[in-house]
Amino acid sequence: MQKDIGGVMGLYPMPVTIVGVVSEGRVNFLPIAHVGVVEHGHLLVSIDKNHTFSDAGIKEHKELSVSLVSRDMMEAADYCGIVKGAKTDKSGVFRYHFTDDVKFAPVLDDAPVSMACRVVGEVEVGNFTNYILEPVHTLVQEECLNGRGKIDYEKVNPILFEFQSAQYLSIGSVIGKCWSVGKNWKSAEKD
Amino acid sequence: MQKDIGGVMGLYPMPVTIVGVVSEGRVNFLPIAHVGVVEHGHLLVSIDKNHTFSDAGIKEHKELSVSLVSRDMMEAADYCGIVKGAKTDKSGVFRYHFTDDVKFAPVLDDAPVSMACRVVGEVEVGNFTNYILEPVHTLVQEECLNGRGKIDYEKVNPILFEFQSAQYLSIGSVIGKCWSVGKNWKSAEKD
Repeated sequence: MQKDIGGVMGLYPMPVTIVGVVSEGRVNFLPIAHVGVVEHGHLLVSIDKNHTFSDAGIKEHKELSVSLVSRDMMEAADYCGIVKGAKTDKSGVFRYHFTDDVKFAPVLDDAPVSMACRVVGEVEVGNFTNYILEPVHTLVQEECLNGRGKIDYEKVNPILFEFQSAQYLSIGSVIGKCWSVGKNWKSAEKD
Repeated sequence: MQKDIGGVMGLYPMPVTIVGVVSEGRVNFLPIAHVGVVEHGHLLVSIDKNHTFSDAGIKEHKELSVSLVSRDMMEAADYCGIVKGAKTDKSGVFRYHFTDDVKFAPVLDDAPVSMACRVVGEVEVGNFTNYILEPVHTLVQEECLNGRGKIDYEKVNPILFEFQSAQYLSIGSVIGKCWSVGKNWKSAEKD
């Protein structure tokens, strides 16, 4: 039996990311799980304008990094959501470096996947700026790549977020192949 | 050791959804995992313009539904990605109904979470229209609600998608509380 709980945004769980920025010459890290995929090749991060310190850096440099958060980064990532960059220097929370051509996107040395991105679009919704990003360099831990050089998400083991109870969840395991498992359903219907 | 694999969009896994539309007077269902959260209360679905049949319905009615896909819906959802609505009537794949005031968003009767949405914005990126959606009615199976009337994602058991190997993944379990587990990290640093 279904219950109508009103206009609740129930699209979860979403992957937790650490957004890395440079603002006022200092690196800062924000945990953001209100993210998205737009077109196959771009991503989106939704930044509250109240994050004034980081938002100023993004608007100035048009570059930022987006990193997936492995299970062992959970506590550090959550810490970044508790303290504000404007008041506290969080640049020491994660080790980082910069790529040669994306100079304001601090790539996280120890994240399983860290993308140095350029801002290619901005969409305002309510008090949020939604940045559309092009990944320029995607750095992956070698042990998180499979034999074909693709990212293996079971090895990445990223944490997820849901806002109904404000909790983190783990991922499980691979359960099926896309554009394949449905062939059985089709056959079953025809029988 | 990190390896630069180029400008790969690595933001996965994302929740798989079934987008329900009405086009040419017929209900159609599309599996879409290129989705997002914009601002706390809105969602985004990224629709390839090559989905001409469904896209015409969205543009005409400015309404659609977005449903999470539980493990037992995986085969039917995948089937909807194998056959095209323009050629095949997929209206019988899922049972559905309409709410009183969102007349072109087929709510899935058996989905764990199904949101009847209105289109409030459109952003073009490449060959995709990214629809920004306001959820008007969120229908949840009663057994997927916790004691506080909130969605319990462990009970929803939604499937996730990653495009590196085009696979579905399961979710695991709750592993921590947001704005809480990081307090320990802070303390550890101070010791």
